Amino acid sequence: MNQQQIQLKSRPDGWPTTETFDFKEVEIEEPKQGEVSVKTLYLSVDPYMRGRMSDAKSYVEPFEVGKPLNGGIVAEVVKSESDQLAVGDVVTGALDWQEYNTVSAESVRKLNLHGASPSTALGVLGMPGLTAYFGMYHIGEPQKGETVVVSGAAGAVGSIAGQLAKRKGARVVGIVGSKEKEDYIKSLGFDEAVNYKDESFASALKEACPDGIDVYFENVGGDVSDQVWPLLNTFARVPVCGAISAYNLEQGEQDIGARVQGFLVKSRVKMQGFLVGDFRDHYRDAYAELSGIVQSGELTFEETIHQGLDKVPDAFLGLFKGENIGKQLVQVSESK
Amino acid sequence: MNQQQIQLKSRPDGWPTTETFDFKEVEIEEPKQGEVSVKTLYLSVDPYMRGRMSDAKSYVEPFEVGKPLNGGIVAEVVKSESDQLAVGDVVTGALDWQEYNTVSAESVRKLNLHGASPSTALGVLGMPGLTAYFGMYHIGEPQKGETVVVSGAAGAVGSIAGQLAKRKGARVVGIVGSKEKEDYIKSLGFDEAVNYKDESFASALKEACPDGIDVYFENVGGDVSDQVWPLLNTFARVPVCGAISAYNLEQGEQDIGARVQGFLVKSRVKMQGFLVGDFRDHYRDAYAELSGIVQSGELTFEETIHQGLDKVPDAFLGLFKGENIGKQLVQVSESK
Repeated sequence: MNQQQIQLKSRPDGWPTTETFDFKEVEIEEPKQGEVSVKTLYLSVDPYMRGRMSDAKSYVEPFEVGKPLNGGIVAEVVKSESDQLAVGDVVTGALDWQEYNTVSAESVRKLNLHGASPSTALGVLGMPGLTAYFGMYHIGEPQKGETVVVSGAAGAVGSIAGQLAKRKGARVVGIVGSKEKEDYIKSLGFDEAVNYKDESFASALKEACPDGIDVYFENVGGDVSDQVWPLLNTFARVPVCGAISAYNLEQGEQDIGARVQGFLVKSRVKMQGFLVGDFRDHYRDAYAELSGIVQSGELTFEETIHQGLDKVPDAFLGLFKGENIGKQLVQVSESK
Repeated sequence: MNQQQIQLKSRPDGWPTTETFDFKEVEIEEPKQGEVSVKTLYLSVDPYMRGRMSDAKSYVEPFEVGKPLNGGIVAEVVKSESDQLAVGDVVTGALDWQEYNTVSAESVRKLNLHGASPSTALGVLGMPGLTAYFGMYHIGEPQKGETVVVSGAAGAVGSIAGQLAKRKGARVVGIVGSKEKEDYIKSLGFDEAVNYKDESFASALKEACPDGIDVYFENVGGDVSDQVWPLLNTFARVPVCGAISAYNLEQGEQDIGARVQGFLVKSRVKMQGFLVGDFRDHYRDAYAELSGIVQSGELTFEETIHQGLDKVPDAFLGLFKGENIGKQLVQVSESK
């Protein structure tokens, strides 16, 4: 039996286009001893994947041209040759972008959902939620009464990061790109929302932070963040989670803007890039905490779910156009 | 009796000029109970003082127009109305830029020189030496075999920072602005010296760091540092001590260049601004260590000493023109 697989057709220079993705028909493999076949339920598109489409040295191996793209997927076991997993089990792992994956049972993790939607394993209870947790709690370390600013605040990571800062008693200001997102993050409990597309963004941000900024959770980079540096308080912390505005620069094009060194010295700021994987030793505790506050309803999350494998390229591109609220997902098939 | 005092005539916009400094004749005050009169031996000019000449919010109060400039001075007690200090004692403190200061005995610290020149209290055994120590050891934390790059490597802080990294077994590359300084830092034990004024600077730096950069001790900022970011290794540390290239920007002029966020995420870099005063609790240990290795001859330092109070403005401006090797000082008078 055959299925659709999404391959990297060519490395994008600048924005990904239709030339970036290729839909190919490939065979569904039968599981061998110790393997399972799983059917993709939800496929995660994440900004970091753009980096893997280039061949630049990075923290993960680049995707290969002519090979399937790959990322976080939630899937259901449909055939099992392993005593560790049974048909009907729902699992998650880094899997190829296709309808079915046949892999070693050990390469995926069985989900214990406790009533949560399986999609949460790709969002609030998965990589984005943990990223928010470690960036905010291990690097940002917001204190009661401090001002925390989160950019990309309506996104999968930012929306959680802001709520986690609120839990520590901080005043939280979110930077977003639409009125709808302003309303959304206010509904999550953010104290203020500032729209970077407004002409008055710089002054609005300043007004929203009358006591300066103690933690800046950086997701976007670019002109937006250039306005943040002058507002940083003494001993401010800047967890740098991403810089999505710069991911689609063309070859040779540089990310030029405000140099930060002067601000870092003046206010003795710590700015630190991180990846969720750097905190692997703390996954268990973080997951337990996030899981508890999701179940109790203290942490709110949203998902923007597209339907069908053919929508994956659009869903991916949508990330860079600011289309999604919360976690951007593609539902590829339904659980039986 | 009267003396010369150097006042801030007007706040410079851009580079300080003759309009920045004013020499005024003022009275030498007689010490009251608990006070001493001290004669300036050595006066320290330091890049950070440029910030105090502006009225922008910073970590220290700005200098006041029409009031004396002030900074690190080594002086000799010439009159004492305090039982804590005797005539002939050599002290250091933050004193006004003039020939004699009359101050509370408690506002200065008596030097125990152990044979060292009193000028070292303003350099290797003073603020610059401690700055190098804390930046390199508390933030940079170089490990054996790592590559450490120091900018402003022939300066008061950089020359010590590089030697301290060598002591931990790192490979140390210095960035300087002249052939003379290249030779100087090599004589200190730096493994490589790269001249940022050479046209081939970018490629020379890359060649000097075949294994990338693990610690970048930042003193200069600007175009020079823009070439450093792409070479940073995973988990690199960037103690940000200063950004001297940007200190004389004119009002409204911005420090524009390579944004760092992309590099920080890709390599999970920690970039941290600091001041020596942030490490006050560790002064004693740091001083003891520095003092020991200076006495044993394991730490080498140079001083560029100008003669006479009238040379202070030139000595100060020289800092920004890259004139000095090692610590830039003015000898105002000789010890009796």
